[in-house]
Amino acid sequence: MLSIEQYRQKIVAYLDTYAAVKEPENLYAPIHYILNLGGKRLRPILTLMAAEIFNCDPDKALDAALSIEVFHNFSLVHDDIMDDAPLRRGHETVHEKWNINTGILSGDTMLIMAYQLFEKYDAETFQALAKLFSKTALEVCEGQQYDIDFETRNDVTIPEYLKMIAYKTAVLVGASMKMGAIVAGASVEDQDVIYEFGKHLGIAFQLQDDYLDAFGDPKTFGKQVGGDIIENKKTYLYLKALEFSSDNDKQKLLHLFSINTGTSQDKIHTVKQIFTTSGSAQATKEAIQDYTNKAFALLASLNVSDDKKQLLKDFGKSLMNRTV
Amino acid sequence: MLSIEQYRQKIVAYLDTYAAVKEPENLYAPIHYILNLGGKRLRPILTLMAAEIFNCDPDKALDAALSIEVFHNFSLVHDDIMDDAPLRRGHETVHEKWNINTGILSGDTMLIMAYQLFEKYDAETFQALAKLFSKTALEVCEGQQYDIDFETRNDVTIPEYLKMIAYKTAVLVGASMKMGAIVAGASVEDQDVIYEFGKHLGIAFQLQDDYLDAFGDPKTFGKQVGGDIIENKKTYLYLKALEFSSDNDKQKLLHLFSINTGTSQDKIHTVKQIFTTSGSAQATKEAIQDYTNKAFALLASLNVSDDKKQLLKDFGKSLMNRTV
Repeated sequence: MLSIEQYRQKIVAYLDTYAAVKEPENLYAPIHYILNLGGKRLRPILTLMAAEIFNCDPDKALDAALSIEVFHNFSLVHDDIMDDAPLRRGHETVHEKWNINTGILSGDTMLIMAYQLFEKYDAETFQALAKLFSKTALEVCEGQQYDIDFETRNDVTIPEYLKMIAYKTAVLVGASMKMGAIVAGASVEDQDVIYEFGKHLGIAFQLQDDYLDAFGDPKTFGKQVGGDIIENKKTYLYLKALEFSSDNDKQKLLHLFSINTGTSQDKIHTVKQIFTTSGSAQATKEAIQDYTNKAFALLASLNVSDDKKQLLKDFGKSLMNRTV
Repeated sequence: MLSIEQYRQKIVAYLDTYAAVKEPENLYAPIHYILNLGGKRLRPILTLMAAEIFNCDPDKALDAALSIEVFHNFSLVHDDIMDDAPLRRGHETVHEKWNINTGILSGDTMLIMAYQLFEKYDAETFQALAKLFSKTALEVCEGQQYDIDFETRNDVTIPEYLKMIAYKTAVLVGASMKMGAIVAGASVEDQDVIYEFGKHLGIAFQLQDDYLDAFGDPKTFGKQVGGDIIENKKTYLYLKALEFSSDNDKQKLLHLFSINTGTSQDKIHTVKQIFTTSGSAQATKEAIQDYTNKAFALLASLNVSDDKKQLLKDFGKSLMNRTV
């Protein structure tokens, strides 16, 4: 098996041969730009890794892996328009560097290009990949819509929130791994197990993101600590705090999340205190552990060697062992 | 063979069973809205007709036909955002009735749904349909980009313009027919001929649209006559007029197309006069006839009965015999 770094190099090298700027330049230059902004390439790495876990040359999964990466970048371009985000990975977003229309049209083009990347596979594999892709892509759109809807709702439940993050981010992690399994010709049972493994790990990762946004170390956490609190985001931490808090704290929390205070350190401090005293912080940590354990437990039923199960587990652990 | 009206009824009935409003409602309600705004359903009719021409039950082509219609409506939703258009078929556009973000996300969802409509076909047919769809969809995006680029260019050539209208509108007409042929299991040669037939007819139709925009009868032409002139659109008429005009008229035309005069009847009158005296109006009529004749000539090599060739020719004629 190759290392994560070797998979990444394979993807970056393949991307170099792929994202040439064609005519019309105003359509393809933004695509070349966003695909070369960097990023961890986590999802396509998972596709190559899954292919090799099921005894397939990872090079055969490169097109499927790249499709996932192109789709992911499509969703970033359109999400950045919707969020009016000026920066992506420290650089101007596509709609800032060009304009909104370019962002829309280049994004559409990437979504189509992602499907085209399955065309080299035989008809059966093509259909399996494209079906999974469509189902997943639709869920990502639905997740994005739920996320938008939740901004103006005050009755979001924990199951609804979990469904939203599953759709918005975790299903793509599951699909990335399942695509590797499909290309490798793994059994349908194994395909489903690796999908659920990835999905559960994806949910754990997203919940950890929520947790670290409030309690992460500013030195090592990539984003601004407290960002979600400033933006009144209804994260798992917030929803659990509403569930667990005393009436007094609940009212305080509802009030604080109904106002915009700018980057108030007071607000961040008070909210974090409620997250801790209510038991929400602890409950979130337990949920993260729970989803991680569920992911690892799924590995038992996989028809691969123990060595390979251990590799998947180690990878999951390294993913979840970000510094708090 | 069924009549055009019978095909249309089939599509409308099938659409009724398809476009249910699902959760999340804010994502699917706009899709239901745009798919039920009406329209001539010309493209899906062509798919059903092509299937029957090649001896296939048109019902078997309904999913492919609907995919084309869903894609077409996706492109309308995103184009209307880009053009800042308030109205579509006499009703509010999606981004006006909801907002731009809804238009982007619901449009993305429709593009994915269009691919999903191929899933009931066997793997070989699925791959053939999806490949054709991706190629065509990409060309439509490229055509839209060329159209945007041409707005700010003063050196657009006739071949470039023809490529733009072919990509933006005609390839989808060709693909609509080819999809019917694919579902029917027609030979690759017949698939290609019917594609070229549709594409040539599509170009003729678009050139006729340019012509009627200036010279159509206000009573029967759906849109405002002179609309392209008011908007300084570089149509076939305009490009040919620049090519044929005297230096004096050429300068006049360049000047008139560099200013915004509102709905000036004077400008419309002067420009139309140049279109006529330069010979551009005549050249445009000849080009329309040329592409129509090319389309009809292609039918000779088709492996279907003369009756069916005649049906395609009659349909083409009825399409091109809009009142001038």
